Amino acid sequence: MAHRILVGGRWRDPRDPVGSFTANDPDTGTPIPGEYPISSWLDLEDALAAGAEASLPLAEAGPERIAAYLEAAAAGLEQRAEELVEMARLETGLPAESRLRSSELPRTTGQLRQAAAACRERTWTRATIDTKLDIRSKLGPLGGPVAVFGPSNFPFAFNAVGGGDFAAALAAGNPVIAKTNPQSPGTTRIMAEAAFEALAGCGLPAASVQLVYHFSLEDARKLVSHPLIGATSFTGGRIAGLALKEATDRAGKPIYLEMSSANPVFVLPGALRERGREVAAELFASCTVGAGQFCTKPGLVIYQAGPWDQEFVASIEAAFEGAPADVVLGRGVIKGLEAGVERLRRLGAGLVAGRGQAEEPGFRFRPALFRVPAVQFLKDAAAFQVETFGALSLLVAAADLAEMSSIAAALEGQLTATVFSARDGSDETAYRILEPTLRRKAGRLLNDKMPTGVAVSPAMNHGGPFPATGHPGFTSVGIPAALTRFAALHCYDGVRPDRLPVELRNENPTGRMWRLIDGEWTRRP
Amino acid sequence: MAHRILVGGRWRDPRDPVGSFTANDPDTGTPIPGEYPISSWLDLEDALAAGAEASLPLAEAGPERIAAYLEAAAAGLEQRAEELVEMARLETGLPAESRLRSSELPRTTGQLRQAAAACRERTWTRATIDTKLDIRSKLGPLGGPVAVFGPSNFPFAFNAVGGGDFAAALAAGNPVIAKTNPQSPGTTRIMAEAAFEALAGCGLPAASVQLVYHFSLEDARKLVSHPLIGATSFTGGRIAGLALKEATDRAGKPIYLEMSSANPVFVLPGALRERGREVAAELFASCTVGAGQFCTKPGLVIYQAGPWDQEFVASIEAAFEGAPADVVLGRGVIKGLEAGVERLRRLGAGLVAGRGQAEEPGFRFRPALFRVPAVQFLKDAAAFQVETFGALSLLVAAADLAEMSSIAAALEGQLTATVFSARDGSDETAYRILEPTLRRKAGRLLNDKMPTGVAVSPAMNHGGPFPATGHPGFTSVGIPAALTRFAALHCYDGVRPDRLPVELRNENPTGRMWRLIDGEWTRRP
Repeated sequence: MAHRILVGGRWRDPRDPVGSFTANDPDTGTPIPGEYPISSWLDLEDALAAGAEASLPLAEAGPERIAAYLEAAAAGLEQRAEELVEMARLETGLPAESRLRSSELPRTTGQLRQAAAACRERTWTRATIDTKLDIRSKLGPLGGPVAVFGPSNFPFAFNAVGGGDFAAALAAGNPVIAKTNPQSPGTTRIMAEAAFEALAGCGLPAASVQLVYHFSLEDARKLVSHPLIGATSFTGGRIAGLALKEATDRAGKPIYLEMSSANPVFVLPGALRERGREVAAELFASCTVGAGQFCTKPGLVIYQAGPWDQEFVASIEAAFEGAPADVVLGRGVIKGLEAGVERLRRLGAGLVAGRGQAEEPGFRFRPALFRVPAVQFLKDAAAFQVETFGALSLLVAAADLAEMSSIAAALEGQLTATVFSARDGSDETAYRILEPTLRRKAGRLLNDKMPTGVAVSPAMNHGGPFPATGHPGFTSVGIPAALTRFAALHCYDGVRPDRLPVELRNENPTGRMWRLIDGEWTRRP
Repeated sequence: MAHRILVGGRWRDPRDPVGSFTANDPDTGTPIPGEYPISSWLDLEDALAAGAEASLPLAEAGPERIAAYLEAAAAGLEQRAEELVEMARLETGLPAESRLRSSELPRTTGQLRQAAAACRERTWTRATIDTKLDIRSKLGPLGGPVAVFGPSNFPFAFNAVGGGDFAAALAAGNPVIAKTNPQSPGTTRIMAEAAFEALAGCGLPAASVQLVYHFSLEDARKLVSHPLIGATSFTGGRIAGLALKEATDRAGKPIYLEMSSANPVFVLPGALRERGREVAAELFASCTVGAGQFCTKPGLVIYQAGPWDQEFVASIEAAFEGAPADVVLGRGVIKGLEAGVERLRRLGAGLVAGRGQAEEPGFRFRPALFRVPAVQFLKDAAAFQVETFGALSLLVAAADLAEMSSIAAALEGQLTATVFSARDGSDETAYRILEPTLRRKAGRLLNDKMPTGVAVSPAMNHGGPFPATGHPGFTSVGIPAALTRFAALHCYDGVRPDRLPVELRNENPTGRMWRLIDGEWTRRP
């Protein structure tokens, strides 16, 4: 008997499901008990109608109630922490400690609480008041539910229920229609149970949170382009992302995508000379953390070859060489890694360290490091920089700064770009030459640290130019900025005072909200 | 001999043009002396290369120099005011006084100066600093030129050179590749001459401003989706807008469109009772200002029929009945109006006032008012709400509030939605019922005033949900918000202090810039 879906404010059986699926334990490769339905369009139609109907009462419930709800949801997740950690461990093969219990779950509840605080404080709405002309504007809810597609690699923090996009969409006043990643339906089910229980007594519509486990790509495209939908967020692979984007673009519906990134790391000669071994150690850790299954894993490492590279190269090779096979999320990851290995070989890159092989039992992969000379890379830069999800990285050995620059220029849009340079200033010229190109190509530019840490900071950008994402102006991590994705600009021109949303009345609704009044940011009335 | 184009920092002949065109004097329908080239792809390729090359030096020139340039451009337009007004009058048929000389030109130079002020002050970049984690972010230039496609109806204020998008794109640090509207190539040429002359001595790259007059739709699609382009802005008709959108969407390039809007005006019974004659007078003026060629012209007027509507209906009919034919922009507008008349007749609407006929000499049209019962409208709401550009409006007579609500629900995305209601409070219930639907459908909601005034206010939203525009979160009028369309979010994570843009260093670069430091908006360091 398949699990029930959460649609229309209750857990119920799917209508006319097209099938069911089970998750696999990546550690053993065997199915995990529990069948999850593959929904037909009927369930999505119901979810759309219920989500659309919930949109107005949710918006009218107001920031205080929504914030209280997000906090209740965070507490609900904490109450079920052990169950969640155990299920996520089983479904993803990620270690319970410290990753799931002490790192990702607190990050997730922290995001919910930050979103609650931003929602309550309301500065994120960018309330702008022109007292002379009596024109007022702010960001407001979209008027339709947000479809959230969660990825496989962060079963809590990016989960379609309870994760960052969920928190941002709700904090911005929109209902959520979540689709679990098929990797972790059990985790998502528990998240949704906790999130739904938290709704009780919060004064929000019961259909503010809905969950459907799986459906066809065709139905997904129908969902995200439906007239009733508000917007869509998607974190996952490029092929599925582009298929959704095509549908939403045609319908004129906003979509926010995080699709892929090679996250180039440039190591300048001075840094190699100064601390090659140290950089290699950091790099290895960054390439293999979470079995390499981070959106910001350094997939490309560009360094200037020369007598100064020996320590760096020897250290990184030794680290990869000695790395044990790591459990990866599933068969799909293994297939992707094998395709990556095959692609790099075909393109002429050599496996220099690690083994790049799948191992049994379950789904395991030995981290692999390839190398290619820059001239070779530049012959087929587009193919060389395709992201391989998992512990596979490519060293690119440049003969000089000009080759490094050419590589930077040949990059497509990235989430991150990183430069390691000497502390003594000897790399400054090279940095100044590379920086403008990297700045244009990446959402986040790092110095002397690896990109795999994506702090939940108001200043974070987990975004970047296409094809890393769909729009260079938005971030999926970082509050309050992440909320603005799920908002429309609402202008009130000559609208009578008692008809204005409280954020735009003369009185400051919270006493703490920042508003732009006649060109000045202020907390005053 | 065709006019020269402004490409690569100089006025030069087109390369291998595919033809030439002339503008027509709408007053007489005869060609205006002056041939303008239709460019081949070669010119666009040159403009792209030069624009891309200018991107970095323009960004590095910095806000002070860019601001000074925008001010110099404003002064340059003022110096050529008489020439501009005369040419625009000739090309558009719009009156020199007060429209062109005393209203639109000052608005245009005002926009340039407001953009300069915003650029200099830099608050628009949303500089965000997390001192604890040393993560800093701000909006920055796109790294490629912005293609600007100007409309026909505002030869100064929305001109691809010197208009609002031009000002916003440059103030955000991006070069502009402008395409004139074929209606007013002479006006655009003079604007570009002034804008280019103003560049001298400003310290900006000479290719910061480029102008090409005309090219095929196929080449336009190639331009806006080109890897070197930063973004595109387009103001015009829906068919061309959607064709560009399809190309940019596929390439993952941002595009900001303003495509069409019926701008529904709802007149509630109390307002009809209280001041029907007054509302009719305002409505007539709004429907016919600029010969009805405003993006925010009320194309749909929904009122609740009943004994209270007599003054309103009689007044609006009389006003349309007595209206003289007005010169419109060109043959295309006449054709569109004739198609609109034909469409409304075919759908079953009746011509109730005015004549809706083209007149000679030149391009003239007598404003037309149609009427249809709500039940009829609701049978084919999509077809009834298609925008007709020009002085053609449709009265929709609703039997009750329920029908008005159904009409609101059947609207597609709009730039504006307006409600006229009684001052005595008798329409409050109706307002509360209509408002949530209208709020969701429109970028700007108005009370008791017509939508045709689009003030250049920081709180303005000249935008709205698709298909009015391409994204509900952005406005094309209103500074500084309009600048954010032409920007990417740039995060600096652990970047060394001397490598940060000055806006993100500890020191406040202007002493006046607002920055979000550790959650507080402040002007302090």
